[in-house]
Amino acid sequence: MSWDLYLAEKAALVEAELDRLISQTAYPPVIHQAMRYSLLGGGKRLRPALALAASEAVAGEAHRVLPLACAIEFIHTYSLIHDDLPVMDNDDYRRGRLTLHRVYGEGMAVLAGDALLTEAFAILAETAGQWPDLQARYLEAMVRVARASGRQGMIGGQVVDLESEEKEFGAETLEYIHAHKTGALIQAAVWCGALIGGASRTQLAAMDVYGWHYGLAFQITDDILDVVGSRDEMGKDMGSDRRKQKATYPALYGVERSVDMAAREVEKAVAALEGWGPRADLLREAARSLVYRRR
Amino acid sequence: MSWDLYLAEKAALVEAELDRLISQTAYPPVIHQAMRYSLLGGGKRLRPALALAASEAVAGEAHRVLPLACAIEFIHTYSLIHDDLPVMDNDDYRRGRLTLHRVYGEGMAVLAGDALLTEAFAILAETAGQWPDLQARYLEAMVRVARASGRQGMIGGQVVDLESEEKEFGAETLEYIHAHKTGALIQAAVWCGALIGGASRTQLAAMDVYGWHYGLAFQITDDILDVVGSRDEMGKDMGSDRRKQKATYPALYGVERSVDMAAREVEKAVAALEGWGPRADLLREAARSLVYRRR
Repeated sequence: MSWDLYLAEKAALVEAELDRLISQTAYPPVIHQAMRYSLLGGGKRLRPALALAASEAVAGEAHRVLPLACAIEFIHTYSLIHDDLPVMDNDDYRRGRLTLHRVYGEGMAVLAGDALLTEAFAILAETAGQWPDLQARYLEAMVRVARASGRQGMIGGQVVDLESEEKEFGAETLEYIHAHKTGALIQAAVWCGALIGGASRTQLAAMDVYGWHYGLAFQITDDILDVVGSRDEMGKDMGSDRRKQKATYPALYGVERSVDMAAREVEKAVAALEGWGPRADLLREAARSLVYRRR
Repeated sequence: MSWDLYLAEKAALVEAELDRLISQTAYPPVIHQAMRYSLLGGGKRLRPALALAASEAVAGEAHRVLPLACAIEFIHTYSLIHDDLPVMDNDDYRRGRLTLHRVYGEGMAVLAGDALLTEAFAILAETAGQWPDLQARYLEAMVRVARASGRQGMIGGQVVDLESEEKEFGAETLEYIHAHKTGALIQAAVWCGALIGGASRTQLAAMDVYGWHYGLAFQITDDILDVVGSRDEMGKDMGSDRRKQKATYPALYGVERSVDMAAREVEKAVAALEGWGPRADLLREAARSLVYRRR
């Protein structure tokens, strides 16, 4: 199966599960509507798909990784909601629709983000209690997910990103932002997917390397698309990084060199899975597809 | 030991642990400074003390409940930071000092709140992995804490609170707001403290009843203090509930009747611990002290 087809198939699976997890009819209505607006707003479901593919690469069972995959998508969604707020990146569009705070107001957007983050850990903790043989692994995943998204992970990256706006920045700051703001949660999705799938410590070490390079390649191509992509394909305003004078790869190295750097990260990601045989083909293709990314 | 003395002693213990958990020198500096500004800003540490007292009531060991107690204080602190934001309650003072967003800006306040919430679950998950004999109980506590603070707990209460501003409200809406916005996390602190302390299911059921009534009594007295308290004692601007036309007990029932209602909730909390003997004296006194609350 091709990665594109796999991604589409798993996106449908995850979408159905997210829909089930946050009921339309729960009380209080408005917070659940707001959560659903962002959660079911047509994401690519890349992180869940990577978690599922990493689990498959170690012969794990999809249904036991699905709660982890959804929890990570909850966290990703909350981070987008809070990042889009006027007091942060101040974005009006996301995935081709108005951002949450433009529809439900800023207070509700803060609360919906908080609720999604909280729910992610509720799901992980409930799942850990459900399968005794997976309890220890789900607990370990919970620690990893919390660290990857917290003050020295994703939030740390966002903090340095905000601080670097309209300032001079170097290669080190840039890599810190990208590795933490986007990379950490992607890496955690891959690593935890393999962990829940039953990976050995050696396999987990390889997944960590793969996830690290994949995450960097993803964010570099994201930066490039903000320069060369079209609004229709991306579903948000382009060129916003430059307007905000964000620390990006194209800003520091130019587009051409950034493309080369992304390709090099992709190669390193693929190399991390050397000797894994065909069971890692999906992950390899997932990495290679970043080079041709259009959205 | 009197409850006041116990509270002061445990506040010092918790304060030292919070200080240790969020290091002054961690990177990125600003987010850690912001977290510490709010976390170490002189709270009463009521929820941690209740968790510790509930554990003692079932002969639990304090050092094994301390991580739970701190995690709950992290969550309480994050909720205050986000509630104080201009897009929510718009408060300038808290505990006698400027609110976090007035010092660090709104973007950083959103992120510091997010980081505290995330850290709470990191601590719980790490602790669960640390003591194998407590793993299942810590997992159960994690579910309870997440539910109590999430979309159908604390956040649900805040949502209905925001929606009820400047509107007619009835007794049912008022109880929903109070039980969820404040009550749920207090009840969870008591219940989880007893759970980690080794309580039986029968004991936990009693703790749930105690926590429910304690939580309501606490919030009713909080409403009353907003009307009759002084700025010096409370460390924040008084009368803000009325200015914002919040749904409060004094607004619906008047001060005098509200005092009676709080006293009745206190009686019910104490009654829940009938037959527990002297080991529950602290919790009984904690409830009774609410009637004479000055801050």
